[in-house]
Amino acid sequence: MDVKVGVIMGSKSDWETMKKACDILDELEVGYEKRVVSAHRTPDEMFTYAEQAQERGIGVIIAGAGGAAHLPGMVAAKTLVPVIGVPVKSRALSGMDSLLSIVQMPGGVPVATMAIGDSGATNAGLFAAQMLAVHDEALRGRIEERRSRLAEQSMESTGDLV
Amino acid sequence: MDVKVGVIMGSKSDWETMKKACDILDELEVGYEKRVVSAHRTPDEMFTYAEQAQERGIGVIIAGAGGAAHLPGMVAAKTLVPVIGVPVKSRALSGMDSLLSIVQMPGGVPVATMAIGDSGATNAGLFAAQMLAVHDEALRGRIEERRSRLAEQSMESTGDLV
Amino acid sequence: MDVKVGVIMGSKSDWETMKKACDILDELEVGYEKRVVSAHRTPDEMFTYAEQAQERGIGVIIAGAGGAAHLPGMVAAKTLVPVIGVPVKSRALSGMDSLLSIVQMPGGVPVATMAIGDSGATNAGLFAAQMLAVHDEALRGRIEERRSRLAEQSMESTGDLV
Amino acid sequence: MDVKVGVIMGSKSDWETMKKACDILDELEVGYEKRVVSAHRTPDEMFTYAEQAQERGIGVIIAGAGGAAHLPGMVAAKTLVPVIGVPVKSRALSGMDSLLSIVQMPGGVPVATMAIGDSGATNAGLFAAQMLAVHDEALRGRIEERRSRLAEQSMESTGDLV
Amino acid sequence: MDVKVGVIMGSKSDWETMKKACDILDELEVGYEKRVVSAHRTPDEMFTYAEQAQERGIGVIIAGAGGAAHLPGMVAAKTLVPVIGVPVKSRALSGMDSLLSIVQMPGGVPVATMAIGDSGATNAGLFAAQMLAVHDEALRGRIEERRSRLAEQSMESTGDLV
Amino acid sequence: MDVKVGVIMGSKSDWETMKKACDILDELEVGYEKRVVSAHRTPDEMFTYAEQAQERGIGVIIAGAGGAAHLPGMVAAKTLVPVIGVPVKSRALSGMDSLLSIVQMPGGVPVATMAIGDSGATNAGLFAAQMLAVHDEALRGRIEERRSRLAEQSMESTGDLV
Amino acid sequence: MDVKVGVIMGSKSDWETMKKACDILDELEVGYEKRVVSAHRTPDEMFTYAEQAQERGIGVIIAGAGGAAHLPGMVAAKTLVPVIGVPVKSRALSGMDSLLSIVQMPGGVPVATMAIGDSGATNAGLFAAQMLAVHDEALRGRIEERRSRLAEQSMESTGDLV
Amino acid sequence: MDVKVGVIMGSKSDWETMKKACDILDELEVGYEKRVVSAHRTPDEMFTYAEQAQERGIGVIIAGAGGAAHLPGMVAAKTLVPVIGVPVKSRALSGMDSLLSIVQMPGGVPVATMAIGDSGATNAGLFAAQMLAVHDEALRGRIEERRSRLAEQSMESTGDLV
Repeated sequence: MDVKVGVIMGSKSDWETMKKACDILDELEVGYEKRVVSAHRTPDEMFTYAEQAQERGIGVIIAGAGGAAHLPGMVAAKTLVPVIGVPVKSRALSGMDSLLSIVQMPGGVPVATMAIGDSGATNAGLFAAQMLAVHDEALRGRIEERRSRLAEQSMESTGDLV
Repeated sequence: MDVKVGVIMGSKSDWETMKKACDILDELEVGYEKRVVSAHRTPDEMFTYAEQAQERGIGVIIAGAGGAAHLPGMVAAKTLVPVIGVPVKSRALSGMDSLLSIVQMPGGVPVATMAIGDSGATNAGLFAAQMLAVHDEALRGRIEERRSRLAEQSMESTGDLV
Repeated sequence: MDVKVGVIMGSKSDWETMKKACDILDELEVGYEKRVVSAHRTPDEMFTYAEQAQERGIGVIIAGAGGAAHLPGMVAAKTLVPVIGVPVKSRALSGMDSLLSIVQMPGGVPVATMAIGDSGATNAGLFAAQMLAVHDEALRGRIEERRSRLAEQSMESTGDLV
Repeated sequence: MDVKVGVIMGSKSDWETMKKACDILDELEVGYEKRVVSAHRTPDEMFTYAEQAQERGIGVIIAGAGGAAHLPGMVAAKTLVPVIGVPVKSRALSGMDSLLSIVQMPGGVPVATMAIGDSGATNAGLFAAQMLAVHDEALRGRIEERRSRLAEQSMESTGDLV
Repeated sequence: MDVKVGVIMGSKSDWETMKKACDILDELEVGYEKRVVSAHRTPDEMFTYAEQAQERGIGVIIAGAGGAAHLPGMVAAKTLVPVIGVPVKSRALSGMDSLLSIVQMPGGVPVATMAIGDSGATNAGLFAAQMLAVHDEALRGRIEERRSRLAEQSMESTGDLV
Repeated sequence: MDVKVGVIMGSKSDWETMKKACDILDELEVGYEKRVVSAHRTPDEMFTYAEQAQERGIGVIIAGAGGAAHLPGMVAAKTLVPVIGVPVKSRALSGMDSLLSIVQMPGGVPVATMAIGDSGATNAGLFAAQMLAVHDEALRGRIEERRSRLAEQSMESTGDLV
Repeated sequence: MDVKVGVIMGSKSDWETMKKACDILDELEVGYEKRVVSAHRTPDEMFTYAEQAQERGIGVIIAGAGGAAHLPGMVAAKTLVPVIGVPVKSRALSGMDSLLSIVQMPGGVPVATMAIGDSGATNAGLFAAQMLAVHDEALRGRIEERRSRLAEQSMESTGDLV
Repeated sequence: MDVKVGVIMGSKSDWETMKKACDILDELEVGYEKRVVSAHRTPDEMFTYAEQAQERGIGVIIAGAGGAAHLPGMVAAKTLVPVIGVPVKSRALSGMDSLLSIVQMPGGVPVATMAIGDSGATNAGLFAAQMLAVHDEALRGRIEERRSRLAEQSMESTGDLV
């Protein structure tokens, strides 16, 4: 499977959250790579990653980080490959700092921000897939199927309200 | 110019903000349509809009709303066309309510959220363009040019620090 | 017992909270139905539910949801049956996102919002009962009795301050 | 016209906001009275108001207050007439204090809370009307008409996006 | 020992916090009574308590409550006996709602607000004692002694930094 | 008139707010002095002020400050004279920083915190007066009169709702 | 005068704030340079600036930015020259986003964060001067003098309380 | 080893956090002393500590405190030795109160504020070291080495993403 999505995160402690993005990509059969790329500890590697993403065939980047979360925005500043940001829940401020650090980008460099934590990572995977599905009917079919399945499960779960 | 982006907003009072998204699309020569579609006042029309978007050739939807901002999330629930959400600054809470209503989507239905207000709208236009540029080299060229121009202006603006 | 109240929630994980609303309705002998209706996973079913509520004899709808909580507001947009919203405590932001997504409705479509979490669900049940009690003296008697009982318990609990 | 709704507020400075509730009631031809009733300056009058509301034929109370907004909750503690709370925008904290003081009621005494400020007052009037409309088809007709009119205006306002 | 301080709280669940106020009063040999007095469940008893406080010889009232914490402000509205408010930590919002509901009183009816939770309850006891000590040298001596003891303990605790 | 209350503030820019405390003291004929005492610019003078307050006959200190508002807490750490804190509205954070810096005192050193801004300053004056009134019946009479006047004005203001 | 401090900012719109830092450096006769260096618009120039700072003799960097303020943290990641961060007040969130984006740095890469806005910029200048003064007695003298002058002005300003 | 850094904290309960600062100083072989110095319990000792710091050879002070955290700012008001503030996570508000009490200093008295909790303490140690390293090449070498080690570990941790 071709690698189409780059899933990066600021630290391995973000993996528990970012794994949810990879789970979705696995489920939808979208090729991806995963890597720890730290804006603050390995800034040059981060820039190199961003610079080479397009020529390496990466079509979407998913970047997760917590606290003063600079990774998504800095990667976005270095490439035209669309970047999806996932605010990882932080210890003191529950991810409100991560969210604001990622979403409040200045006009000129967008980051597509998802919800704080697991749901955000899941949705990052899905959004990446939706973007790729524009030119991949089979993928779109799988996403649609997933939605239908979730809808069905949701409706059936009324039976669990006891 | 083919309409590729649907710019919708909950009320005409959002136009002052959402115009920034359209300005970018104009500048980058991306075809778009703009419409007031209210989740709360015209829910059926909203659903119809979302349902028909794909077959009408809309490749990206930009949805702006303020307060209990349900438009982006509800549209995203009804289509697989990627949805970009713009939290419009609200009167009492400065858009913090809009931001949380848009970004905190549950796993399963992503909305690509931008910053509150004008920067967010600008970036929504840019992100839409970046998505479309994946298969449109000329567009990518125009975005790159825009970035270079901004970089240059930024560097030159040191001269204005007086 | 006639079903007079529709208790709906976005996901079965909301049940632990929303059960408190049902407990009150049971206690006050108010007929109700309970259902998982997801704004984001089953938007069409949500609309159908809202559209049919009145003709099905539902006099009040209690809708609970967490995070970007669109269920109460969207149901309210589709029916004139009064809607009571319960913000379910969310994982990262403790329900502040749920609260703002529910309460900050634009002028035109009201949602009667209760407190975050269990107290809010309890009060949703009580408020529904108070609304129905306007034309049901026996029910009002039961609510009054409940209040008196709570008042007595409250006063007696001074004895527990040891 | 019979007085069916009691619109009260903590201070005459709340009138600018609470007028929006009265405007709706006027428009929908619902009889109401309006009064300054201060939880902190005239607590006994507040209790008397709450105690007599039902026997005076008041079917719904709309109570607006700002800051440490105790009026809606205290009135709700003294009557079974349903109470709708409107958080008035406060000077320092933009109504976030008003909102939390009103909505975070303990289990046992519900207040149906609306949005901060003008939209909340408008919606308080509408919610009161929706409650009364359960047994008043003509009123329901007027509310429906109002909704249709707003929907139409919303759709037409696309023409104003220039 | 004469009862000089009335320690009241909205619910017995507040006792764990409010006990800290009583511990201080015990330690400083200040007479007090403690009682559950609920603004929302027993509003009339609350008013009676406030009305009779002065004639019963209560010189200071300490009132603790959580969430939409109306007890301190409502008691303060009904008596000129100084009222100290303790925001009890709430479940969803960690006491931020309690704090704002207590401290943001309108001009005219002051509540002397302490910190959220245990420290606040401790300080409520101390502040009450400081107020009474203005006319009670022996009590002032005991407070001074307590402060000296704490200062010493604080300085000695450097030895524990291992 | 004997000086009984010390009104201090961190900077002359706080005067606009703190004047409200002095207005009340003037109105109630309570002797006071007013002074700029800065925790950060004149720390030694602050300590001297606190140390000498009691022997100079000051019975209550009202301290107003904004931002990282350390004045009330530091003065309270240096004297047993009761200290009332007034959070002055700050430029960026509207006084939320001032409030938390003043109210969140650790167990051992209480500051009686009032609302942010003008209402808080007014109430600081009133609370000081209420404390002094415990041993001054004439003063209590004036406070009672003031309350009655406000109650009357409040009730009459219903006439202004037009 | 040797350039010892590098004052950089993300955009020329930050100048109004950052000028306060330069004013202090001028007043204290500390050599500095000022430059617009944008993390998002000119990331490579930002890295170059950070990489060369030390060899160019810059002893302290003051970096101001607003919103998703990545400049101070990214510069800090690329140099061992101490970096002082100034959160510029942002339009929607009053600088709370800027503050959290700057201060919540992960362990390993510190940024010395100042207050939001003008006071923060002033203090950045002062802190830089204090750092340089460790090895420059004359500079320390000038800072001390400044402090004394402010103390005196503060004490004299009591005369303005009218 | 000469003592160059003074690590102080408001209470021994802050030690768990502040230990992280000492760990870094140990690791980088920077001499330090550690002490409990409470702004509120031992204000005179705090002032003495601040006054003597410079003559005792202390080049940097690291001060940690929680809640209404006045220690860093008050020490900074009494010395020209640069002060680094560490907001310790507080019980109710997770350190948001500590952060604002420390960072929002008025113009004139800077405190170099770090992140809330452990990361902040770690970074306080690092920032102190970076300041001292300006005139200590060996120390700078050790900091550089530490950074390289962290960078390597970060890159290698990609292997742990399983």
